[in-house]
Amino acid sequence: MAQGEALVIFTPSGKRGLVPVGTPVLDAARRLGVDLDSVCGGRGICSKCQCTPAYGSFPKHGVTVAEGALSPMNAVERRYDEKRGLKPGRRLGCQAQILADVVIDVPPESQLHRQVVRKAAEARAVEMDPATRLVMVEVAEPDMHAPSGDLERLNAALGAQWDVAPATAPLAVLAGLQQALRKGGWQVTVALHQGHSDAAPCLVDVWPGFFEGPLFGLAIDLGSTTIAAHLTDLTTGEVRASAGVMNPQIRFGEDLMSRVSYAMMNPGGAADMTAAVRAALNDLAHGLAAEAGVEPRAIVEAVLVCNPVMHHLALGIDPVELGQAPFALATSDAVEIAAADLGLVSINPAARAYVLPMIAGHVGADAAAVALSEAPEQSDDLVLIVDVGTNAEIILGNRARVLACSSPTGPAFEGAQISAGQRAAPGAIERVRIDPATKEPRFRVIGCDLWSDEPGFAEAVGAGGVTGICGSGIIEAVAEMRMAGLIDASGLVGSAAATGSARVVPEGRTHSYVLHDARASGGPLIAVTQGDIRAIQLAKSALYAGARLLMDRIGVDRVDRVVLAGAFGAHVSPLHAMVLGMIPDVPLDHVRSAGNAAGTGARIALCSRAARRLIEMNVRRIEKVETAIEPRFQEHFVAANALPHAVDPFAELARVAPLPVVDFGAGAADGTRRRRRRS
Amino acid sequence: MAQGEALVIFTPSGKRGLVPVGTPVLDAARRLGVDLDSVCGGRGICSKCQCTPAYGSFPKHGVTVAEGALSPMNAVERRYDEKRGLKPGRRLGCQAQILADVVIDVPPESQLHRQVVRKAAEARAVEMDPATRLVMVEVAEPDMHAPSGDLERLNAALGAQWDVAPATAPLAVLAGLQQALRKGGWQVTVALHQGHSDAAPCLVDVWPGFFEGPLFGLAIDLGSTTIAAHLTDLTTGEVRASAGVMNPQIRFGEDLMSRVSYAMMNPGGAADMTAAVRAALNDLAHGLAAEAGVEPRAIVEAVLVCNPVMHHLALGIDPVELGQAPFALATSDAVEIAAADLGLVSINPAARAYVLPMIAGHVGADAAAVALSEAPEQSDDLVLIVDVGTNAEIILGNRARVLACSSPTGPAFEGAQISAGQRAAPGAIERVRIDPATKEPRFRVIGCDLWSDEPGFAEAVGAGGVTGICGSGIIEAVAEMRMAGLIDASGLVGSAAATGSARVVPEGRTHSYVLHDARASGGPLIAVTQGDIRAIQLAKSALYAGARLLMDRIGVDRVDRVVLAGAFGAHVSPLHAMVLGMIPDVPLDHVRSAGNAAGTGARIALCSRAARRLIEMNVRRIEKVETAIEPRFQEHFVAANALPHAVDPFAELARVAPLPVVDFGAGAADGTRRRRRRS
Repeated sequence: MAQGEALVIFTPSGKRGLVPVGTPVLDAARRLGVDLDSVCGGRGICSKCQCTPAYGSFPKHGVTVAEGALSPMNAVERRYDEKRGLKPGRRLGCQAQILADVVIDVPPESQLHRQVVRKAAEARAVEMDPATRLVMVEVAEPDMHAPSGDLERLNAALGAQWDVAPATAPLAVLAGLQQALRKGGWQVTVALHQGHSDAAPCLVDVWPGFFEGPLFGLAIDLGSTTIAAHLTDLTTGEVRASAGVMNPQIRFGEDLMSRVSYAMMNPGGAADMTAAVRAALNDLAHGLAAEAGVEPRAIVEAVLVCNPVMHHLALGIDPVELGQAPFALATSDAVEIAAADLGLVSINPAARAYVLPMIAGHVGADAAAVALSEAPEQSDDLVLIVDVGTNAEIILGNRARVLACSSPTGPAFEGAQISAGQRAAPGAIERVRIDPATKEPRFRVIGCDLWSDEPGFAEAVGAGGVTGICGSGIIEAVAEMRMAGLIDASGLVGSAAATGSARVVPEGRTHSYVLHDARASGGPLIAVTQGDIRAIQLAKSALYAGARLLMDRIGVDRVDRVVLAGAFGAHVSPLHAMVLGMIPDVPLDHVRSAGNAAGTGARIALCSRAARRLIEMNVRRIEKVETAIEPRFQEHFVAANALPHAVDPFAELARVAPLPVVDFGAGAADGTRRRRRRS
Repeated sequence: MAQGEALVIFTPSGKRGLVPVGTPVLDAARRLGVDLDSVCGGRGICSKCQCTPAYGSFPKHGVTVAEGALSPMNAVERRYDEKRGLKPGRRLGCQAQILADVVIDVPPESQLHRQVVRKAAEARAVEMDPATRLVMVEVAEPDMHAPSGDLERLNAALGAQWDVAPATAPLAVLAGLQQALRKGGWQVTVALHQGHSDAAPCLVDVWPGFFEGPLFGLAIDLGSTTIAAHLTDLTTGEVRASAGVMNPQIRFGEDLMSRVSYAMMNPGGAADMTAAVRAALNDLAHGLAAEAGVEPRAIVEAVLVCNPVMHHLALGIDPVELGQAPFALATSDAVEIAAADLGLVSINPAARAYVLPMIAGHVGADAAAVALSEAPEQSDDLVLIVDVGTNAEIILGNRARVLACSSPTGPAFEGAQISAGQRAAPGAIERVRIDPATKEPRFRVIGCDLWSDEPGFAEAVGAGGVTGICGSGIIEAVAEMRMAGLIDASGLVGSAAATGSARVVPEGRTHSYVLHDARASGGPLIAVTQGDIRAIQLAKSALYAGARLLMDRIGVDRVDRVVLAGAFGAHVSPLHAMVLGMIPDVPLDHVRSAGNAAGTGARIALCSRAARRLIEMNVRRIEKVETAIEPRFQEHFVAANALPHAVDPFAELARVAPLPVVDFGAGAADGTRRRRRRS
C-alpha cells in the first residue's frame, strides 16, 4: 500500500481497491465500478449515495476498520440529517471521505442497478436499468464573448459531469429549458432518456435545481378485450397503482377478426378504432396518475405489449393485411416513439414509448412479453406457456429451441358467447363443484367468500345476487359436469332420465344443466346449455391443437411443465383445465399460473434496457409456426374436440381424476347440428 | 488488358478502368465511382442514367471506339424510346452493355451530384447532394414461414440494393407502407432522408412502383418584416416558384425588441406570435405549391433561416432572454426536426426541416446563411458583408479570420418610420434624382419604367398614382438632397431661402423637401421631412458603427470590398449608400449586391448536405462581437451620424461625388429635439 492510500472494500459486491486518503466514498465507488446511486452528482442533495461503514475486524476481508476510518460528519451531512433524517450509521457517500482502511456496505436502496426480486422462483431477477433516469447538472452561465445556446452548455455539462453523449431536446423541452436553468441558479435536474440502441440520448424534461423524483413509467398490456396498465416506479421497479378498462374497440367487433373486418368494410373504420383505443390509453394513464397521487409530468415512459391487430391499430396502421394470409405485419421490430404519438398526452408531453417486437403476424408483442417474463430459452425442461385471451398465444421451448404460435380460441374462455356468461365481476360464478353422487352443484361468486351451500350465502352475496357465470366459472362447470357424468366424452349433455338429475332440463332437442334458479325472486336462471359446452369445446380444441402443433415440430408427445399466463391463467384450476383437455397431460403440480405474464414482461422492459435488447434478440430466434397454414392443425383440432381428447391418453389426469364412462348417444347432437344448419 | 475485358472512359470526369465485356454502363460507372444517377436501380424505368457513347478515334484518351462498342438497343430501351423519347445518340446506362473499348459521356442531367452554377463569380459552386432523395427498391414478399414486417423487408432491400442503413419510419409513413408495396407489386419508390449527421435515415414517403419525382424543398428566409420562400427542385436545384408575405407578427410589434417586449408583457404572447408565424409559413408553402402546380406531397424538406428572435418564436421558445444581456439563446446549434413541428402541415406530412445554426444571441441563422452563400472564409481580400433588414447582420473577414455582429438599424431602411414611407410595392418611389442646379426632383415608381419627368408618366403610373416612398427611395432621396446641397453634413434641411428651392417647405421649426404633390387631384403629398432624415441617420449610424467595430477588431481602417446582401441590397445604389455613409469608403466598383444572400444560403443548405456540415463548422469558428456591450460602439455610432461621416475621410467617395459644403446652423435641429422631448 503506497503512502497516503487506504483500502476500501464495498459490500455486498466485494469490490475492493486502494484509493488516496481523503477520497469521497462516492468517488471511490465510481472508480471501482461499484453500483452506488447518485442523482445530484455529489452535491450532498439527493442522498441517493447513502451507505453504511462497518467497524471492527473482518477476517473474511483481511481488514480491521477503526473508528475514524471515515471523516466525521460534515456540515452538509448534519444539515441533511436534521432536515430529512439519516438512518443510524448511515453516511452520505459523496461527503464522507475515506481516511483509513474501511468496509462500506451499500444498502439496496442506494444501488442504481438494484435487483428487483421476482416472486416466481423460475423467472429471472431483473436489474433496474430504466431508459429514463434523473441526473442533476451544473451548467455554465452564458458568456457574451463566447456565445452558445443553453442547450449546448447543458450538453457540455452532461458530458463533463455524467459522461453522456449530447442529448437532443424536443421543442417542448427546449421551450422550458431557459426558465428552468435560471430558476435553478444554473443547476437543473434532467430526465434523460437513453434508449438501448445507438440513437442519441434525449431530454424528456428539465426541473430547476434538484428534483428528487421518482420518475414513473406505464407498463401497458393492451388486450382485445381489456387494457391493463401498471404505474411503475422507475427507481425501485415497484408498481404504485394498477388499473384496467374495457377496450372500447369492442363496440366495433368482439374479437380480433371482427375488428379487422370492420376496418375492411368501413372507410375510416381503422382510424376510428385507433382513436378509440388511444383515448382509452390516455384516460387510463390519467386515472392511474390521479389514483396514485403522481404528478403526470413524472410519468416519462410507457411500454406497450399487445397482439398484432391491437399493435397496428394503436400505431394507426390499418390491420387489413393481418386478416388474410400471409398475415404480413407493417413492422415487426420493436417500435420506439414519442408516447404522445400513441395518444398518451395526459403524461409528460415528451414521454417516450416502447412497443415490444412482434414474433409473427399472429403472435404479437404480448407473446414476446410473456417470453421475456417466463424466459423459456433459459428453461432446462420443456415448458409450454399458454396465454389465454380472445386469442391464445402458445410458446413451447427450452434452452435448445423455442417455438411460438397463436390460436384463435375466441372469447368463450372470457365468458362471452356463453348463454349466462359475463365478465369477471362481482356476482359472477367463478368456482363450481358438482357432487358426483347427487349431481347437485355448489358454487362461489366473485365478491363473496362463502360457497353457495354455506349458511348466510344469500345475505353475503347481497342485493346484487348471482348475476351470471364468468370464464373460470364456465370452465369449472363444464369440467365438473364431465366428472359428474352429466356430459359424455363427446360433450353431449344427458337428459334428466339418463343422468338421474332433475337439474337437467330440456331446451329444444338438447339439454341444459341448471346451476342457479332465482326466477322466483325475479332473478336470473343460470344454466349451462349444450351451446355453451360446444363453445367451450371449440375454444379448448383450438388451444390444444396449437400446443400439439408445436409439440409435433419438436417431435415430442408430452411436455415437462405447463405455465398458464394471463389473468385467466391466474383463475383457472389446473385440474379442471386438464379435464377439459385444454392443456396437454402433465402431473398437476407441473402446472403453474404465471399471472399476467404479458404485463410482467411489459414491466420488465420498462425497468431494464438490457431486457429490451434481450427480447429483441430472442424474438428473432423464436421459431414461428403459423397455425392457419399448417395442414395438421385441423386434424389436431378435430381430435381435441372430445373431453379431454379423442386420442391422447391423458394418463396423468386419469391417475388423479378418473372420468366416468358415459355416452348419451348421437340423437340430441344430430338434432343440435340440424337446428344449427337451419339457423 | 485481360481477355474478355474492355476499357471504358467516362467524360467529363475522365475516370477510366477495365470492366468485363457485357458489363452494363451503369454498373461500370458505379464500380469506377463515376457520378451517374439512377432512381430505379437499373430497371430501365427512370432513365436517369442516360449517357452518350462517343465513337471514333480519341488520341487524348489513347483509344479508338468502334461501332458496336455498346450492345444494340434492347427491348427496354426501344420501349422507353417509343414511349418517352431518347435524345439522339443517348442510351440507358443500365441497359447498354460494354462490348469493347468505349468513351461514354455523362450529360449534366444524368449526374446525381451535378453542380449548380451560381450566377455570381465569387460565390462557390454547389454540388447537388440533398438530404432527401428518391430510390426505387424491390422488396421481398412476406413469407409466413419466416415472418417479418414489411418495413423490415423494405429496409433489407434498401441495404442490399442501395447500401443504406436501416431507416426509421414515422407512423404516418408506416401507415401507408403496406398498401404502397402491394399496389406497386412489391416495387416502391421511397423518399429517403439521410441527414448529414450520424442519425439513422428516415423514410419520408413511399410511392407504389416507380415515382419519377422530382422532389421539392422550401428555402425559407423568415425575416422580422417579410417571409420569403423559394420552392426548389431537389434534383436540379432550380427555383420553381418564389413568394413573400408580410410577417404577421408585425401586429405584435414592428421590430424585434418590441416583439420581445410583447412576449414579456403579455402572458401567452410568445405563443400567439409562434402561432401567427407558423400559420404564415404554412400558408406560404401552400400558396407556392399551388402556384407552381406542385403536389404538396412532393415537398419533402424545408430549410429555415432567420434571426434569433424569429428563430425562437418559430420553434415555440419564449424569446425573453434575447431581450436582455447576456442574450442567451435556448439553442445555438442547427436544429433538425419534423417540418410539421414548425407548423408546415400543408406539405408532405413527414417532411423534415433544417434550421441553420446561430452565430450569437444577436446574429442568427440568417447571418449564417449569408456566410454560407458568400463564403468570406474563402475570400483572399477582406470583404465586408452587410445584410440590411430591420436588424443588420454584418460579417467581415477573409481566409485568415471571420467576424460577425448584428446592429439594430430599425426598420427605417425598409420605409417604416418614414413620414411617407411604404413597403416596396407598385406606386412607391424607388429611385430619386435631384438636379443640383435647379434642386428639382425626378423619380421612378415601382411598376413603371418611366421617370416622373418623362412624357406619359402620369398615364403609365395609372389610377393608383404615386403612393409613397420605399426603402431604396428614401435612401436615394436623402443622398440626393445631400449631393444637391439641400441638407448639410449634420443632416439639417436648409430653408427655402438658404437652399434657393421652393420645394423646401417649413414644417414646424424644421423643413421638409417636397418630392411629389398630388393634393390637387386628391392624391398625397410626398415629402422628405427632417424626422425622416433623422431616422435614416440613426439607422445608417448603427450599420456603420457595427462595421467599424469589426474593423477595429481586425485592426484595419478600410476593407477591400463590400457586399450588400438582402432584398434591400439588391435595390440600393452603392453610390447613394456611400453618400449616406452607410458603408465604409471603397471604390464604387468594389461594392456588389448579392441579392437575397440569406435566401441563397437557405437554398444551398437545402441542396447540399456538405454545405450544412460546412456552415455548422464555420459558425463555430466565426468570432462573435456583441455590439451591445462594446464600449466603442456608442463612439462609432455618434461619429457616424454625419453624412457621410464626422471623422472618416471617404476619399473614394470624394473622387466620384464631391459633396457640397453647406451648413444650415443648429437652430432647427435644436427645435426638433425640443419638440421630441415634449412628446
